[in-house]
Amino acid sequence: MNPFLPISAQKDLVLASGSPRRKKILEELGFEFETIVSGVNENECFIDDPIQKVKALAELKAAAVRKSCPGKKIIGADTIVICRNKELGKPTDRKEAAEMLAFLSGKCHEVVTGIAVIAPQNRRMIDIERTKVYFKELGSREIQGYINTNEPFDKAGGYAIQGLAAPFIKRIEGCYFNVVGLPVGLLFIMLEELETL
Amino acid sequence: MNPFLPISAQKDLVLASGSPRRKKILEELGFEFETIVSGVNENECFIDDPIQKVKALAELKAAAVRKSCPGKKIIGADTIVICRNKELGKPTDRKEAAEMLAFLSGKCHEVVTGIAVIAPQNRRMIDIERTKVYFKELGSREIQGYINTNEPFDKAGGYAIQGLAAPFIKRIEGCYFNVVGLPVGLLFIMLEELETL
Repeated sequence: MNPFLPISAQKDLVLASGSPRRKKILEELGFEFETIVSGVNENECFIDDPIQKVKALAELKAAAVRKSCPGKKIIGADTIVICRNKELGKPTDRKEAAEMLAFLSGKCHEVVTGIAVIAPQNRRMIDIERTKVYFKELGSREIQGYINTNEPFDKAGGYAIQGLAAPFIKRIEGCYFNVVGLPVGLLFIMLEELETL
Repeated sequence: MNPFLPISAQKDLVLASGSPRRKKILEELGFEFETIVSGVNENECFIDDPIQKVKALAELKAAAVRKSCPGKKIIGADTIVICRNKELGKPTDRKEAAEMLAFLSGKCHEVVTGIAVIAPQNRRMIDIERTKVYFKELGSREIQGYINTNEPFDKAGGYAIQGLAAPFIKRIEGCYFNVVGLPVGLLFIMLEELETL
């Protein structure tokens, strides 16, 4: 149980995500919930505008899981990294990871997460959170050393702020947990507002 | 072993702190180190200027531990919270914790950490990191519910951003790990620069 939200706001929760980071954030805040992976393929979403895209994907993921658990409250989320108008996904090999980290080196990028919560009686809330992240200049020893840890491969932008990439980040502006994958401040507001719909 | 720093920069490390949060941050970055509590009493430091105070306390803590482990590289740190020119320490009872959280509610405060690294041949580096933290408006249910978790009591400012207070924080500007208690980006720069002294 989370100590701040009313019981009604946090019961019957389902997280529509396979991300161990999102799961850990919710667990550490005391939530009790099921996890069901949506099966939505992010690469099959062809919306150009990144903000519209993360919102649509978050809602699609929640909606896909909702079919298998009616009466529950489903949380869907999708996170992307944008640097100089270029969207960075999850690197698939060492070369792509090295290119991504070299591109982020010394620059500011933005992490954007779309969150959707779908509750019974088709009550829906969808919103986004944006955080700026400033990378220091990375040398090839840092880039290659980081790729050797295998940490980049299942993460948008190719890094984990909560992992070994922590010292790469000079500063952030916004919600830290958004960069990890789940903006908790926004999620709390959404779960509270959903009670009033 | 941390994969980014040269071996010489990270061997013989001693953390002069009893904070489990500082220890965990260093461990998760792969460092191997001893922990020795300095015994320096923060309440017996009467420097008025908070920036000078955290620097002095960080250096005092490292210097106190150095006596018992010559030849090692000692890391000292001290963190304070400043809100509207008022310094907030660690609350000692429920009343003080409630006053502190009510004072932070809806405002921006600053977390300042002083870090000192003292290495053999009396090579020393001392610096500070500052992060702005924006709290949302807290209701009495949130404040009392949070105090009931006992989380406020051993923490400067009476909250843990990495703990249950995460949803209280709207945004930060600066290094996240500084708010937890150890600014890792700055520490890496210091350990690297110490090699060149």
